[in-house]
Amino acid sequence: MALRGALSRLSHSSRHFNHTYQQSRAHSVAVLGAPFSKGQKKRGVEHGPKVIRDAGLMERLSNFDFSVHDFGDLNFQHLEEDEPYMDVKFPRTVGAANKKLSAAVRNAVSAGHTLLMLGGDHSLAVGSVSGHAQHSPDLCLIWVDAHADINTPMTSPSGNLHGQPVAFMLKELQDKMPDIPGFSWTKPFLSSRDLVYIGLRDVDPGEYQFLKSFGIQYFTMRDIDRLGIQRVMEVTFDHLLARKQRPIHLSFDIDAFDPSLAPATGTPVNGGLTYREGIYIAEEIHNTGTDHYSYGFHFLWSFLDFLKVFDCLAFESNLSSSWCAGLLSVMDMVEVNPDLGASPEAVEATATLAVDVIASSLGQTREGAHTSMDEIPPGKNDTELRL
Amino acid sequence: MALRGALSRLSHSSRHFNHTYQQSRAHSVAVLGAPFSKGQKKRGVEHGPKVIRDAGLMERLSNFDFSVHDFGDLNFQHLEEDEPYMDVKFPRTVGAANKKLSAAVRNAVSAGHTLLMLGGDHSLAVGSVSGHAQHSPDLCLIWVDAHADINTPMTSPSGNLHGQPVAFMLKELQDKMPDIPGFSWTKPFLSSRDLVYIGLRDVDPGEYQFLKSFGIQYFTMRDIDRLGIQRVMEVTFDHLLARKQRPIHLSFDIDAFDPSLAPATGTPVNGGLTYREGIYIAEEIHNTGTDHYSYGFHFLWSFLDFLKVFDCLAFESNLSSSWCAGLLSVMDMVEVNPDLGASPEAVEATATLAVDVIASSLGQTREGAHTSMDEIPPGKNDTELRL
Amino acid sequence: MALRGALSRLSHSSRHFNHTYQQSRAHSVAVLGAPFSKGQKKRGVEHGPKVIRDAGLMERLSNFDFSVHDFGDLNFQHLEEDEPYMDVKFPRTVGAANKKLSAAVRNAVSAGHTLLMLGGDHSLAVGSVSGHAQHSPDLCLIWVDAHADINTPMTSPSGNLHGQPVAFMLKELQDKMPDIPGFSWTKPFLSSRDLVYIGLRDVDPGEYQFLKSFGIQYFTMRDIDRLGIQRVMEVTFDHLLARKQRPIHLSFDIDAFDPSLAPATGTPVNGGLTYREGIYIAEEIHNTGTDHYSYGFHFLWSFLDFLKVFDCLAFESNLSSSWCAGLLSVMDMVEVNPDLGASPEAVEATATLAVDVIASSLGQTREGAHTSMDEIPPGKNDTELRL
Repeated sequence: MALRGALSRLSHSSRHFNHTYQQSRAHSVAVLGAPFSKGQKKRGVEHGPKVIRDAGLMERLSNFDFSVHDFGDLNFQHLEEDEPYMDVKFPRTVGAANKKLSAAVRNAVSAGHTLLMLGGDHSLAVGSVSGHAQHSPDLCLIWVDAHADINTPMTSPSGNLHGQPVAFMLKELQDKMPDIPGFSWTKPFLSSRDLVYIGLRDVDPGEYQFLKSFGIQYFTMRDIDRLGIQRVMEVTFDHLLARKQRPIHLSFDIDAFDPSLAPATGTPVNGGLTYREGIYIAEEIHNTGTDHYSYGFHFLWSFLDFLKVFDCLAFESNLSSSWCAGLLSVMDMVEVNPDLGASPEAVEATATLAVDVIASSLGQTREGAHTSMDEIPPGKNDTELRL
Repeated sequence: MALRGALSRLSHSSRHFNHTYQQSRAHSVAVLGAPFSKGQKKRGVEHGPKVIRDAGLMERLSNFDFSVHDFGDLNFQHLEEDEPYMDVKFPRTVGAANKKLSAAVRNAVSAGHTLLMLGGDHSLAVGSVSGHAQHSPDLCLIWVDAHADINTPMTSPSGNLHGQPVAFMLKELQDKMPDIPGFSWTKPFLSSRDLVYIGLRDVDPGEYQFLKSFGIQYFTMRDIDRLGIQRVMEVTFDHLLARKQRPIHLSFDIDAFDPSLAPATGTPVNGGLTYREGIYIAEEIHNTGTDHYSYGFHFLWSFLDFLKVFDCLAFESNLSSSWCAGLLSVMDMVEVNPDLGASPEAVEATATLAVDVIASSLGQTREGAHTSMDEIPPGKNDTELRL
Repeated sequence: MALRGALSRLSHSSRHFNHTYQQSRAHSVAVLGAPFSKGQKKRGVEHGPKVIRDAGLMERLSNFDFSVHDFGDLNFQHLEEDEPYMDVKFPRTVGAANKKLSAAVRNAVSAGHTLLMLGGDHSLAVGSVSGHAQHSPDLCLIWVDAHADINTPMTSPSGNLHGQPVAFMLKELQDKMPDIPGFSWTKPFLSSRDLVYIGLRDVDPGEYQFLKSFGIQYFTMRDIDRLGIQRVMEVTFDHLLARKQRPIHLSFDIDAFDPSLAPATGTPVNGGLTYREGIYIAEEIHNTGTDHYSYGFHFLWSFLDFLKVFDCLAFESNLSSSWCAGLLSVMDMVEVNPDLGASPEAVEATATLAVDVIASSLGQTREGAHTSMDEIPPGKNDTELRL
């Protein structure tokens, strides 16, 4: 009886999903390169967009049931007069690049695209997330990274701005942030409760205090060891999406992965995500936007999972039969640095990994492509006709 | 009181196991090479039997408490007149090889051997499983692979028969399979409910529809990420063995492993099994055939696990003190291709991995060799005698 | 109401922790090299102390809030007259080295140091643990290793003493151990219930019988696959520390790690600990000595974990704001052998891994360094003063 009720409700859901799919069919994905490296000291990360494209990004995206628009690379200026501010290097150059990126992201999202931003170093997130927030003030931010990137100029051990982008965003840090030259165009816009970190394992002392003081939800590699990546994603979505569905900004630093998988990056830290954990994060983000993550619905879904495992009722084939953007609205893929790979193979592995994460975030599944049964050749009769 | 009851029942079980062991002591393992590569386009996989033997297979098997019979390699013919059928390459050559293999497997199993078939490409499973089924019509099939290998000639993107063997077996696909030249000797014999896949991560669109339409129990790498390999094996055995104990056919494609572990194979896919997951699968298959997996017994076993963890009662030492074949009846180890390793080390690693999986499937444990306490030297007194 | 009660109790705990911290602030760490290799046949492991130091050990330890004393390397003699005893090689040389080490360890611990012993081969544990036990008879022993190292001269397949150190310690093996020349200075001192193994995957037949006969709590890699490393550590501490808090001796053989991570070692075995599992073990050992692991307290802590996950109450920042030695009293890091790495990179990776485990055992966290909020610069006002 309970089962029949659940099935009946699911049946309604399926129809709802088809409706969702009708809506999302209109979606398109825009690709924007941001060849910028002045947020840190190691040259080469400005070639990130090129090597990610060379690793077959556009071919992979062409397999999907959405249109792709490649807007090429932004053209950034290096300002001649750009004295350090405290220890912060190139503040005006980084600020101007992010201002330009911010406008481009706002325009792309306003035009209805799901945007993929290819960095470049992680300082670019200031522009990417702020531009996104101008169009979608209710966005939430999932930051996948070995580092928290939440230093202020006063707490930063290095002075590199790629370790500080989150500090520019958070309202709670407003009175801790000085007026850095080049950043007058942006004001804090994000509440700390709208941010979740995944993959942390190298957190500076000041960063640790910010995380704790503001009650930020974060998952270190130790937390992933304890909870498992499945539970981490459940809690992430409960934290960000339980009250309402809203756009997701995914800011993915390739150094979240273990250095054995992503060696060509500037600040690798041992003990990172496995390939499968990274893909799982991306898949789960793609799967958002269905009733799966609606508030109070987990118990039913767990029950359906239970049924699937024991009886293979295979509901899900009905649920995802064509592309749906999920809630992912903007994705940054940053810190792929081809100059830092020990070999061409190391660079290619890192760039291909970036493409795999992007593809999974946009709907590539390990369960196989989902076509309808109608498209499957009928077999013998058909064959006899062909013979 | 409840505990005492459980212990009492376990004590009965132990005696029962000893009985099982008496029966299984008569078992022997037969090794059969199948140097065949015409089920796909990359040459080299026909050398699989040789490199697996060179990696020390027979020495490893000689450590066990069973007799080993090496029947050498089958001799396959390449037929001159073998035009493609639709896109299917070498249908008559593949069909004839499998017919030969089928008879050899049937004979070996009928003679009481547990059979180990060394491929060769995975098209050989048509012959291996069908021959096994002729002797044991009630067998169940565990397919460990990155791919589902369930395409029909109409759905196959490549036309390679190593991607289609399961389609020849399934009764449910009978009306979808054309009459392919060379395969008139075999008819579908397996119900889709007697098959479980483990390790999938590259499933073609038509394959996905078959998996879903027939309600096949399968575990992708994503499912392993969610459930863990322990739960995957529990559900596998609940699905296949809960109603009755029956022979297991294990068809193990080395590409189920991550390419970092098994690089020398034809169609590697990132994000595969870890070494430990592969060994765990093999160990669990060896552990079948005890009350451990009897229907309705899980709750008691979980309780015993609980006791073991908390009190180290170490029941298990009584349960596995000598070799028992479990329910494993035939095992395929396929797709090791020495021509595709980037280095001799890569080839050796792949072949050694195959040997490790084979040894674990046949009873090698990570807990240590199980001899009886009687065989342990008594210590000081004995030593004094020797001095 | 229940929550308020829990919070109230936690608040008391926090004050208690501050008290603990006051006590532990006096602790210091002593480093002692033991360049010894006669417990096995492969030369090179006597250079372990040097390569671990060269990998930056002292710099890493200098980041902590404790004082570090490097006592340099012990000077061991190779005895000329040292005929084998049964199959045991160099018994008098190994015995004399361990006698010397035992005295050094006893003195260091008696002087109030937490001791770090750098091997050398694992036969050195006889001296290290026995010296520790002379000062702390109630110690417990956590043995992280691919091997059980519990052979007696009668059961050892190789005759190497690095596979036998535990047999010298256990009271239960007293009547199984002959009087080996060179070891008359030590008597069994450890009960088998005070020992837990983690990481086993290559256990000899006699060893298996000892493990089972004495009811030793051990976790093979298969157990870690089944339970997960988090549960393994919980059960370890429940087993060793539930009745009372007491000093921990951690004897860490680098071959517990997978050979892909720690290639430069004498007896590597596939399927070992991941980097993250090894670090997790070390972190958990450091975290001992708080109420976290007190008897009957788990349920409350689980509840607090639950709160943390769902609400980020972030209690822990109060609990670990400065260095605390936990219960770790002596740590052995053994079997790093620079002569056995295939390349300088392989040696460096192995030695750096050893340093990472040591640092995590002594308090390095993946959550970030824990400073108090008072130390964080106040932000804008301060900055304006600086401008």
